[in-house]
Amino acid sequence: MQPRFEVLARSGAARLARLATAHGSIETPAFMPVGTYGTVKAMTPEELEELGAQVILGNTFHLMLRPGPDIIAAHGGLHGFMHWRRPILTDSGGFQIFSLKSLRKMTEEGVQFRSPIDGALTRLTPEDSMEVQLALRSDIAMALDDCTPFPASEPEARASMERSVRWAARSHARYYQRPDPPGGLFGIVQGGTYRALRLASLEALLQLEWPGLAVGGLAVGEPEEERLRVLEELVPHMPAERPRYLMGVGFPEDIVQAVSRGIDMCDCVIPTRHARNGHLFVPGGVINIRNSAYASDLGPIDVGCACYTCRHYTRAYLRHLDRCNEILGCRLNTIHNLHFYLELMRALRGSLAAGTFEAFAAAYPRSRKGAVA
Amino acid sequence: MQPRFEVLARSGAARLARLATAHGSIETPAFMPVGTYGTVKAMTPEELEELGAQVILGNTFHLMLRPGPDIIAAHGGLHGFMHWRRPILTDSGGFQIFSLKSLRKMTEEGVQFRSPIDGALTRLTPEDSMEVQLALRSDIAMALDDCTPFPASEPEARASMERSVRWAARSHARYYQRPDPPGGLFGIVQGGTYRALRLASLEALLQLEWPGLAVGGLAVGEPEEERLRVLEELVPHMPAERPRYLMGVGFPEDIVQAVSRGIDMCDCVIPTRHARNGHLFVPGGVINIRNSAYASDLGPIDVGCACYTCRHYTRAYLRHLDRCNEILGCRLNTIHNLHFYLELMRALRGSLAAGTFEAFAAAYPRSRKGAVA
Repeated sequence: MQPRFEVLARSGAARLARLATAHGSIETPAFMPVGTYGTVKAMTPEELEELGAQVILGNTFHLMLRPGPDIIAAHGGLHGFMHWRRPILTDSGGFQIFSLKSLRKMTEEGVQFRSPIDGALTRLTPEDSMEVQLALRSDIAMALDDCTPFPASEPEARASMERSVRWAARSHARYYQRPDPPGGLFGIVQGGTYRALRLASLEALLQLEWPGLAVGGLAVGEPEEERLRVLEELVPHMPAERPRYLMGVGFPEDIVQAVSRGIDMCDCVIPTRHARNGHLFVPGGVINIRNSAYASDLGPIDVGCACYTCRHYTRAYLRHLDRCNEILGCRLNTIHNLHFYLELMRALRGSLAAGTFEAFAAAYPRSRKGAVA
Repeated sequence: MQPRFEVLARSGAARLARLATAHGSIETPAFMPVGTYGTVKAMTPEELEELGAQVILGNTFHLMLRPGPDIIAAHGGLHGFMHWRRPILTDSGGFQIFSLKSLRKMTEEGVQFRSPIDGALTRLTPEDSMEVQLALRSDIAMALDDCTPFPASEPEARASMERSVRWAARSHARYYQRPDPPGGLFGIVQGGTYRALRLASLEALLQLEWPGLAVGGLAVGEPEEERLRVLEELVPHMPAERPRYLMGVGFPEDIVQAVSRGIDMCDCVIPTRHARNGHLFVPGGVINIRNSAYASDLGPIDVGCACYTCRHYTRAYLRHLDRCNEILGCRLNTIHNLHFYLELMRALRGSLAAGTFEAFAAAYPRSRKGAVA
């Protein structure tokens, strides 16, 4: 089914809303944990639900290479393959193409690359991406885009954006050629850090119908103030009655800033990846559980946290598990970090419902991004 | 408290019994999952309970090196450290000393070795082992033994057995020097594959009071028929009113054989280690999930299995997780293998209660140990 979006409350540019999909509703602002290979690393689907994850992200590029779309289609799609019953958004592979850099060959048709798995020559066109995402039967699919690097000159950013627009049209044509697609296709606004290009990208995309739009090409190394400026210049022009998804962002304070500027959805590997590296979120920063200071620390990661990990385990135990490379350490750390993110999203939604969003956002600590306490 | 043992039913040499400890009762025959570093690899305590684990094993040697007994004692013992509320048995470190081989120096006093973690010169005497196990506050502690290798000449096995007897007496003296030890201390019968030495070891140990006795020095490379012969020659002479623990055994069919010969408790890393290597137990054998035959297999590991993994995931998905080195793969495989073992123990107890043990044991497949189906 086509996702349906309903705005429930506003505070400045920020919105509280509900996005209905074939696999249930997503209350926004929403954070999407990343499940690259058909698993949010270290977690079961039941644990994700328990943590309050409403939607997860699957990586088309990675799943296309392993196990391949046919095997997932034989399970009825990604939901059945991975035993996740709630909504799934799949990306298009555009960001992974971007990350391949020298290993790829880009043409107007699409991209050719050597598979990082087995070196096989592989192709990804807008049409290929749609076919894979249709096989995965995600609730929200993404158009294939050409992600503009940072920095990029204006002509480079323009050429890249214009290609993204053409690929978006081809993506749209292929996806909606299906009489009954499993979900809806989101377009992706590119244009680098150039206001005029961002607005031109948006205007060109809006020649077609999209149930939602994403802001791509950010979180690729640009300074925070550039990212916020792009959002401030672009988001007010995006359709108010459609969800806005900021791709690949970010730290908790980045999410608060984005929501303040009208973003409804975001995703990032930070909470899960940080967890596996022993970097654990606490109010105002991050602690590194590998620090020897925690060797005999009998307190939880965060005394104010109600997650399973903080209710039952000490910093000393978590440090011990990390030192011994124990799988349980990755699990407990991931539970904590995802709880931190999903609790933030609950707090954002709660403040929007209660009319206290502005104060909440203003009070949220900004300055200690990634700082190790 | 001292463990208390009550035999509820018998069938030939096999017994159904209950072992009461400070952290609850264990119904025997019981299998103890191994939690080397204060975690049964990949599992939470809640998951272990859900699977039906009644008691787990902690490794004194490993926990002594990381994180050290003081940190565990500061948590009130191993139960508090790892958040496990049911019984814990700790081994003595004897088997790990045995495995160190050339890296150790054995004397009558104890053993000196280089820590495999940091190379530090470390000592383990019977008294050291008791102090560590008392700090861990396990419900069942084990005397430090000198594990006899296989093969060993009669004089070698005799000297090793006699040292184990002297170390057992020192272990007993130190453990029960405490006015109120947290649990009880089991002695360990050694003597290699020599009947006279096994019986001499048992007789010498029985000069002291033990709430249970273990059979050590098996599962060290001897042929199956040697192991079964030792059990047949030794177990009938072990006190009938005390639990009998066969250390380090084994495959499912080995456990059935041991229980048939009067063994009440056993432990082994096989189910958890096999799981992490993709070797999954099915009736009559083991399948290797890495086999390409499973790439598009939409069935569960075992259609007759009721575990969480078999209820929700296909072989194709598990193979995919294994290929991608996903932590969830280790988790799901471990759940299945532990379920297989603990279900076997339930079936053994059920057949003893129902008076059908003999038929159950006779019908249990013996010949495909570790075979890859």
